[in-house]
Amino acid sequence: MLSDPAQKYRAFAPVRLAERTWPDAVITRAPLWCSVDLRDGNQALIEPMDPARKMRLFSTLVDIGFKEIEVGFPSASQADFDFVRQLIEGGLIPDDVTIQVLTPAREPLIRRTFEALQGVPRAIVHVYNATAPMMRRVVLGLDEDGIVELAVSHARLIRELAAGHPETQWTFQYSPEMFSGTELEFSKRVVDAVTAEWAPTAERKCIINLPSTVEHSTPNVFADMVEWMHRHLQRREAIVLSVHPHNDRGTGTAAAELALMAGADRLEGCLFGNGERTGNLDIVNVALNLYSQGVSPGLDFSEIDDIRRTVEHCNQLPVPARHPYVGDLVYTSFSGSHQDAIKKAFAARKEGDVWEMPYLPIDPQDLGRSYEAVIRVNSQSGKGGIAYLLEKEYGLVLPRRLQMEFSRRVQQVMDLEGRELGAADLWALFDREYRLERVALGAVRLEEAGSAMRVQAQATVEGQALLLHGEGNGPVDAFVAALRAHTGAEVQVLDYHEHSLGAGAQARAAAYIEMRVGAQVLFGAGVDANIVNASLKALLSGLARAGTGVMPAAAQEQAA
Amino acid sequence: MLSDPAQKYRAFAPVRLAERTWPDAVITRAPLWCSVDLRDGNQALIEPMDPARKMRLFSTLVDIGFKEIEVGFPSASQADFDFVRQLIEGGLIPDDVTIQVLTPAREPLIRRTFEALQGVPRAIVHVYNATAPMMRRVVLGLDEDGIVELAVSHARLIRELAAGHPETQWTFQYSPEMFSGTELEFSKRVVDAVTAEWAPTAERKCIINLPSTVEHSTPNVFADMVEWMHRHLQRREAIVLSVHPHNDRGTGTAAAELALMAGADRLEGCLFGNGERTGNLDIVNVALNLYSQGVSPGLDFSEIDDIRRTVEHCNQLPVPARHPYVGDLVYTSFSGSHQDAIKKAFAARKEGDVWEMPYLPIDPQDLGRSYEAVIRVNSQSGKGGIAYLLEKEYGLVLPRRLQMEFSRRVQQVMDLEGRELGAADLWALFDREYRLERVALGAVRLEEAGSAMRVQAQATVEGQALLLHGEGNGPVDAFVAALRAHTGAEVQVLDYHEHSLGAGAQARAAAYIEMRVGAQVLFGAGVDANIVNASLKALLSGLARAGTGVMPAAAQEQAA
Repeated sequence: MLSDPAQKYRAFAPVRLAERTWPDAVITRAPLWCSVDLRDGNQALIEPMDPARKMRLFSTLVDIGFKEIEVGFPSASQADFDFVRQLIEGGLIPDDVTIQVLTPAREPLIRRTFEALQGVPRAIVHVYNATAPMMRRVVLGLDEDGIVELAVSHARLIRELAAGHPETQWTFQYSPEMFSGTELEFSKRVVDAVTAEWAPTAERKCIINLPSTVEHSTPNVFADMVEWMHRHLQRREAIVLSVHPHNDRGTGTAAAELALMAGADRLEGCLFGNGERTGNLDIVNVALNLYSQGVSPGLDFSEIDDIRRTVEHCNQLPVPARHPYVGDLVYTSFSGSHQDAIKKAFAARKEGDVWEMPYLPIDPQDLGRSYEAVIRVNSQSGKGGIAYLLEKEYGLVLPRRLQMEFSRRVQQVMDLEGRELGAADLWALFDREYRLERVALGAVRLEEAGSAMRVQAQATVEGQALLLHGEGNGPVDAFVAALRAHTGAEVQVLDYHEHSLGAGAQARAAAYIEMRVGAQVLFGAGVDANIVNASLKALLSGLARAGTGVMPAAAQEQAA
Repeated sequence: MLSDPAQKYRAFAPVRLAERTWPDAVITRAPLWCSVDLRDGNQALIEPMDPARKMRLFSTLVDIGFKEIEVGFPSASQADFDFVRQLIEGGLIPDDVTIQVLTPAREPLIRRTFEALQGVPRAIVHVYNATAPMMRRVVLGLDEDGIVELAVSHARLIRELAAGHPETQWTFQYSPEMFSGTELEFSKRVVDAVTAEWAPTAERKCIINLPSTVEHSTPNVFADMVEWMHRHLQRREAIVLSVHPHNDRGTGTAAAELALMAGADRLEGCLFGNGERTGNLDIVNVALNLYSQGVSPGLDFSEIDDIRRTVEHCNQLPVPARHPYVGDLVYTSFSGSHQDAIKKAFAARKEGDVWEMPYLPIDPQDLGRSYEAVIRVNSQSGKGGIAYLLEKEYGLVLPRRLQMEFSRRVQQVMDLEGRELGAADLWALFDREYRLERVALGAVRLEEAGSAMRVQAQATVEGQALLLHGEGNGPVDAFVAALRAHTGAEVQVLDYHEHSLGAGAQARAAAYIEMRVGAQVLFGAGVDANIVNASLKALLSGLARAGTGVMPAAAQEQAA
């Protein structure tokens, strides 16, 4: 039994803010956004990003429209230092983008940070020190005066080092670390002392960032704290007031929204809420919440699945199926009454109408997604649905998105035939739909070619013989190159699953590949005794399903 | 580029509540909890639960301490009808638990609902109809008077049908569907009309449930709406005011908490936030938020991983790695400065102290978890971490929790040896730790025995020869039974992963099994050309790692 928490845990003390204004506020414009994916997010990964992944994510963040990007912690990590140098020396920072780097308030680390930034056109130097009582006591062993002195002396060092490099346009940022766990009066005292040192102006503001390093309270309390700071800070007109919410209590998004209502100007966070423990604020979530209220976020998520795939590749963590705006299931309805209401509302909707759709707070097409009505075979009867029957009777373990794709095909057939389908019907339909019998491989030759691999394969697809040649990192990559060359179509692998079917010497492999062919995103599937061949068949299956033809581009021209 | 939303989307109209009180409220006691996992949650699954899974989840909900459980929609689904009958006829409802069933306001469906409930000792009949303007217009084609008449006439029918069965203790519940999208004045009008019909008293309350069917606004607006209803509803003293938040804007948890501050008495939701689209309210999240503030939730999550595994089994959806309180990564710190602060705070902490730990808002041990400091091999150097090196150089794809388990072992070795480890070191350590070379199989015989499978296997584990016999649903299950019988230890498989290693005729399989041995939860790993044998080796590996010995219980006694 869970023990009685009364002795062990203490309730967070509320603020008792007199005449608070935030509950009546409405957010009518987007905040300034700062992505911390490459620093805070990266630090929280089981496998931090290698340089290639970092660069890929940086360029995705730029494409989305971020103007401030925290790119690393150069004094703590050689990899981060090198990445900052690579960005600067490669001239890879667009003119309207400012990079930000984090440093603790310690002299050698600050000096090292400025070394990393040498020659950068614009930069935000983000310095922090602990201010929370427990951190003062246990970690730093300093009293309040000591903390203020620590903050001010390092703020001064930063100002001096920056003055030595007038070729760079500097912005200073200070975070009282664990603001969410610090007494408000003391946070104000430290921040006021730092801004007195920096002397920002309305024309050259500094950034004061209030982290809820750990979320301790309901989000209204955080909003009260932000409103208190907003009202009481000195030099407020010269400050960009920023917040950096975490999500320990599952209310990071709400905390950010209420903080904006309470006076914050800027949000720090990560795509899809990556970050230590339960994650940082999910910037996509807040941005699309604004979008769905008619407020333009200034960030582009019109192809949200492409962004999701990039983030999953870089972070090596899947985005959950129910994650707001982006999860696999968030535009799906299973309930008949929901499906019915949506169908009627789509029918009643006229082009140009305000979006008012039951169960769909946003038009999925705005994000490059579509509404999906999913039906189940026999689902509620307890005899099992499509995936269950295919797994139980035929050993196929379909990935989730393939389940959803195939279930729509099943629905079409059921609508046409007006009857339920059994396991054998489903297997036959799967076989037909994914061309299991209509894709065959002849001789497949794989050879190492330096660090690359070369493939040569004979294949028959829907009766047509092909001879394919290609080169790539591995067999699948080489085969994709072969298909591209052969068909002229843009082919790209998005996701890949394979499992064994049966056991022992009779075992075969089933491969499922989610791929892009031209503008289409769809699955191919293949079964073979050889796991490489199963993958190659899956690629041919997807290509055949895309209907772009598998004839050589040249041959098509001749035939035309 | 994301289009300008200004023409397409409309901002949600705020409430402008005069003298709102909720921002000053603090939650000091737990609400009434109602689990809707078996109805709302189940409806939202790609594969709805079969009867065995439903029963397993029901019993888990009872064990957690839920006193109100919505078990189905019996008029819409024969499977739900049968499940309700099974609970009633099997006498499976504990005396302090009340089941709840959902029905639309339609006469035949209400009659069918009462058929399903025949003979139940206690039940909540939960009736709903659409009240939101768009649903009135597009789906029902009724004006306001028509909606009120619809609600009242069906409320009357329910009262009459209940009166015919005085052997049951009835509670009535009404939901104005899409309360979050309905004009407040109209919600009040409908609810007042329904409660006038039911005539509840302070001793025999009815439940009025306010669903945010789709989350449309920041959570403060929902709180304003709830406070407005709380203040304006007639017969408030005879009403249990319930809310049913969804999570479309990622603020379901906050909406629930602010609603409690605004006057709600009861929450409906699901474990870990399962439910249509982005999910229902996550009850575990709200309950543990209360717990961490010193308020006893009255629900037991002291073995949260067991509950997670049951929910994952029943829903066939993984709980995300960053999900509050339960995700794989939420008690992990990767950052050296976090690890350092936590280490110091643990050292300073005395038994009986109030919990005050940097970066850990709750003591993971209260939930049967532990704090995990994870180090990475070469992580920031860009040469890749443990999992990356093992995959790249040796083809092993470790499941996430195994990565974390093994990384702690790596850390111990690095602490001891004071140096970084390369791919070959890691492989040697993995081999040693998971006994890859010290577990061998001799002859393995599998035979069908009716619907079961019988296994007989010769094995050598750390030099000791074993002969094992067992029977089960499949080879793994049979082998687990054999190990249980042979060693006397409680052995249970919690999670299972297998993948191919290499390609073609030389391909082997790697199996990873998360298992419980007695009180320990740990992984075993095995590699073999035969996928069944790889699994059996993984089981022996885990058993050997558990250190409980692999000798027969009898032989151990003799040896002692």
